[in-house]
Amino acid sequence: MAIDLDERKVEVHDHSRDRTINLGFDQLHIATGARPLRPDIPGIDLPRVMGVQTLDDAHAILARAELTDCKHVTVVGGGYIGLEMAEAFVRWGAEVTLVEATSQVMRTLDPDIAAKVTTAIRGFGVDVRTDLPVTGFEEGVVHTSEGEHHTDLVVLGMGVTPNADLAADAGLELGPRGSISVDRRQRTSADGVWAAGDCASSFHLVTGEPVHIALGTVANKQGRVAGVNIGGGYATFPGVVGTAITKICALEISRTGLSEHEAATAGFSFDTATIDTKTIAHYMPGAEDMTVKMLAEQGSGRILGAQIIGGRGAGKRIDAVATALHAGMDVQQMIDLDLSYAPPFSGVWDPVQMVARRLVRND
Amino acid sequence: MAIDLDERKVEVHDHSRDRTINLGFDQLHIATGARPLRPDIPGIDLPRVMGVQTLDDAHAILARAELTDCKHVTVVGGGYIGLEMAEAFVRWGAEVTLVEATSQVMRTLDPDIAAKVTTAIRGFGVDVRTDLPVTGFEEGVVHTSEGEHHTDLVVLGMGVTPNADLAADAGLELGPRGSISVDRRQRTSADGVWAAGDCASSFHLVTGEPVHIALGTVANKQGRVAGVNIGGGYATFPGVVGTAITKICALEISRTGLSEHEAATAGFSFDTATIDTKTIAHYMPGAEDMTVKMLAEQGSGRILGAQIIGGRGAGKRIDAVATALHAGMDVQQMIDLDLSYAPPFSGVWDPVQMVARRLVRND
Repeated sequence: MAIDLDERKVEVHDHSRDRTINLGFDQLHIATGARPLRPDIPGIDLPRVMGVQTLDDAHAILARAELTDCKHVTVVGGGYIGLEMAEAFVRWGAEVTLVEATSQVMRTLDPDIAAKVTTAIRGFGVDVRTDLPVTGFEEGVVHTSEGEHHTDLVVLGMGVTPNADLAADAGLELGPRGSISVDRRQRTSADGVWAAGDCASSFHLVTGEPVHIALGTVANKQGRVAGVNIGGGYATFPGVVGTAITKICALEISRTGLSEHEAATAGFSFDTATIDTKTIAHYMPGAEDMTVKMLAEQGSGRILGAQIIGGRGAGKRIDAVATALHAGMDVQQMIDLDLSYAPPFSGVWDPVQMVARRLVRND
Repeated sequence: MAIDLDERKVEVHDHSRDRTINLGFDQLHIATGARPLRPDIPGIDLPRVMGVQTLDDAHAILARAELTDCKHVTVVGGGYIGLEMAEAFVRWGAEVTLVEATSQVMRTLDPDIAAKVTTAIRGFGVDVRTDLPVTGFEEGVVHTSEGEHHTDLVVLGMGVTPNADLAADAGLELGPRGSISVDRRQRTSADGVWAAGDCASSFHLVTGEPVHIALGTVANKQGRVAGVNIGGGYATFPGVVGTAITKICALEISRTGLSEHEAATAGFSFDTATIDTKTIAHYMPGAEDMTVKMLAEQGSGRILGAQIIGGRGAGKRIDAVATALHAGMDVQQMIDLDLSYAPPFSGVWDPVQMVARRLVRND
């Protein structure tokens, strides 16, 4: 496939009839999504080195595991997908080794919070190895910088990259991580050409900078904005604050705004506070551990981000902080919020307010 | 006890020594709380007609129920406490009748949402009777406007009233529902006299009007504000948006902002929308029913309030709406929020955004 911006046409290969056709356009919308990263490592194209993106991929992985009487699975990459696959294969009955090239799993979290994820997934039975880049695959063997180990199946969870080649070849401007650069109306750098979803850039409301976040919530909003604009209406994408949530074993993990690394990169001077508390009133049956970390700008007290990890009911509390980020609230405004309280749900101060109180005391 | 504002002293009766002493003051803080309503109904002071405010009250009720081999309990009042006591006594093994003088339980909810609570508590085994004022009590008998029924124990859950007599007798101004009127710094109408908590008024950020809300979250914040100010600092109470949450049987019920009745009373023209959805992605195991109702001002689209009822994980979602109310957001801003999504937690559009989308379409 190729886009010709001068001729206003798209060259499309029709596989069913093995022919090439040209489609003219007035408005062109690019929604090519993202694909799992498959870095150029020797042996990565072996049949037992499998990526996971679609439901069909998941079926194929499970079918292969069952067919080959798989005993040991190696998951490469400690992001959301890698951790979820590691958990799933422990539940399925395999021994699982998770190898992560960097020093921590879940790089969207700060190291101290990510360490709690590592502890949990190790406790669940996953052999987690950090700082261990994979250097190659052979049939039944994974080579790493510290030697090799035997495995029956390799699952890749190394993140995704935007499908932006088509756009790049046509000369469209690219943004963060190679995504198609768009403005708030989802317009690319070429007149009448739009992009939305995992292939496109977004922008971050806390930093004000372009960012690439491949999540369904973003894609859903961007697609709607592009559709309204292409249809002659007027809509703008509101931006993201970097909210995400996942469940690993019994742990709920969520984050919004900037991590310490992101805040430092964006040039913020910031304080952090972390509290260890309970998901509900401590004297109630079913109270589970919960940790909340918050970042606030020094001086202004503006909230920059938060991370939550804990038992049932912990994760979704990030939404109050995400809403506060959209409103540009500072820690005092967070404390002032009239959030819901009853013992089966919370302490009298919600944990996201308790951590804000700690930050005010830091001033 | 009595407060003498002219002489700047408080007359206190010392029960332990049966003497009256006068305590002078420079600054006086009134934190007298609230008490359960005990309306002037014949027989209300019988020993088997019991109120519940403190942990000791709860122990006393349970002790009496056990001692008297109680078979049938009548709960008077369908508010939070009444419903919780009704549920507790069904669990304990009693037959329970709940009588409510007005047309619905939980008057802080709209009738359509309250009807779901009634259905749930009836399904749990409570005989709920609305529009049925109690006219009197005798030993073993409850008289109502529609006849009498036999009962072993009566529990009152008729709401609370501020303990403001001391303040009223001293000539301090009173506010909504007889609470002690205070400004944003918790100052009463008399110089150097402060009040905070369930005895004091508050103000509502959506209406801008004084209001009385007897909740621990409010009391906790007001007490801190009063303390800072009395200590020579400067603090202001941020106001409330009317957030509350409770759990009745397996149902989580929460609300924030204004109900339809409150919005109409405050003079707003508003639209409402209600959606029936699931607590988490509909295809995930454990998805439970969840209903969200939202009110928005006509024209501006400003969010005025929301009510949520549903299974596990439903209730605390009200906090994102409460935060949006503090920020004065409209329904489009609610839709634009970057809230957390993963299938174990939510659909790709959080229910509080789904209902906002419905309201935008109403425009």
